[in-house]
Parts: sequence; C-alpha cells; structure tokens
Amino acid sequence: MAHYSRLYKVVIDVPEGDHDQELTFWQEALGRTLARNERYPEYHGARLHGDSFALLMQRLGAGPARVHLDIHTDDLEAETARLELLGARRLQLVNDYWWVMEDPAGLPFCVIPQPPGLLNDQNAQRWEV
Amino acid sequence: MAHYSRLYKVVIDVPEGDHDQELTFWQEALGRTLARNERYPEYHGARLHGDSFALLMQRLGAGPARVHLDIHTDDLEAETARLELLGARRLQLVNDYWWVMEDPAGLPFCVIPQPPGLLNDQNAQRWEV
Repeated sequence: MAHYSRLYKVVIDVPEGDHDQELTFWQEALGRTLARNERYPEYHGARLHGDSFALLMQRLGAGPARVHLDIHTDDLEAETARLELLGARRLQLVNDYWWVMEDPAGLPFCVIPQPPGLLNDQNAQRWEV
Repeated sequence: MAHYSRLYKVVIDVPEGDHDQELTFWQEALGRTLARNERYPEYHGARLHGDSFALLMQRLGAGPARVHLDIHTDDLEAETARLELLGARRLQLVNDYWWVMEDPAGLPFCVIPQPPGLLNDQNAQRWEV
C-alpha cells in the first residue's frame, strides 16, 4: 500500500506570558490573520502565499519558545514507522490524533494525519512501502 | 514607496556533530535533495511542494539545534524598520547581506533581501509605508 506525506506547516510554540504579544506581532509582520482553531483553541493559524504551506502558533502552558515542523500524511502508522526507520523517535501520541516525534538532532516535530484523498502526486510525496 | 515581503523559508540549524545525519534524515523524510548552496556552503536547501516555500538546513559551528523562520523582502531597510516598529529587534547584519532579528518572544528570525521584481501581489504582501 502506498501512502503520501508532505512538510506542510511550521509552528511557533510560545509560552502563555508571551503568547498574545507574539500572536499580534506575527499577524502584523505577515499581514495575515492567524485564526483560532475551534477544536484546539491553543492553536491559531493561516495558510501562506500559494496555499501549499501554513503557519501555526501554539499557546504553551510553560517552557521556552521555539519553532517546530509538521509533516502531514494520509497514513499515520505507515508514515511514523517509515520515519522511525530513518532515525526518528516517537515521543508522544497527542489527543489520540497526532504523533510528536524527535529527529536525529533531538528536535521535536509532529506527524499529523489527513483524511484520504487530500494528498496526491501534485502536492505530496508518494511512498511505496 | 511600497515594498513587499513574505514568509518564505524555514531553517533547521544543526551543530556540526549532528549535521550530516540530520541532513540525510530530512532528505529521506521529505524525498527531496537539499542541495548545497555554492555561495554559502553551510546551507543546504530545496523548495517544497507548490514552490512557494522552501526548507534550508544550516550547519552551525556550535550551539543547540533549533528551527527558525526567514522573511524575504525586496527592501531590506524598509522591512526591518517596519518589523522594529511592530516589536522586533535587530541582532546582527550577516555577510553584509541579511539581518538576524528577534521577535517579541525572543525567537531569532532572518530578513533576507531579494532582487526587485521577484515579489509581487500574487506571491507576497505589499506594504505601503
């Protein structure tokens, strides 16, 4: 079975105390409204120019600010298993929905499932496993 | 005078000891060759799907791995001045070419000049200053 994945988002993680100022800054810096996600209100986001990449901001309870990457896929299990074979490590399944993984340099990134049919040969990479 | 800017790149900064393994990982994770930049060989990069966003990896001499954002602009002085007014701070002019700035949460990001004519109303944000 083949599956697809693509690097689709960059996420700015910001602790509570800096969040609102940071959200205002990046909205004005980019000229885009970062809309609050209804299901996960700790996230605000927008697609960027070209609609093939998106920016999110995540409100953190604590911890230092940082930036991380999100890979989207139509087969979460196949994609996380593929990335493990390449040297990544699974850290945590969040909301029974997406995986936080760690790359070989210790940077966290997320693997996010998308419904079948959204990813294809035009907008993503096909993997024959 | 109007100018343009857009969020165009995400950069994975990796210390020397982890660099080669990290480069191999992300190339295989994304199915893309991250080509070495001839002028600045500490950078490897590729455009992502849709060609409206790019990924770079920077080899660091030392320091922890991290991810940062790059804003591209056709008027470096006007754009950095605009971002300063929004709350960012200039940290360093690198190679007499691009600025490293710091956002309100203390995250570094870069502002990179592009030749006039590449950014327009279709692929970037226009700023009337």
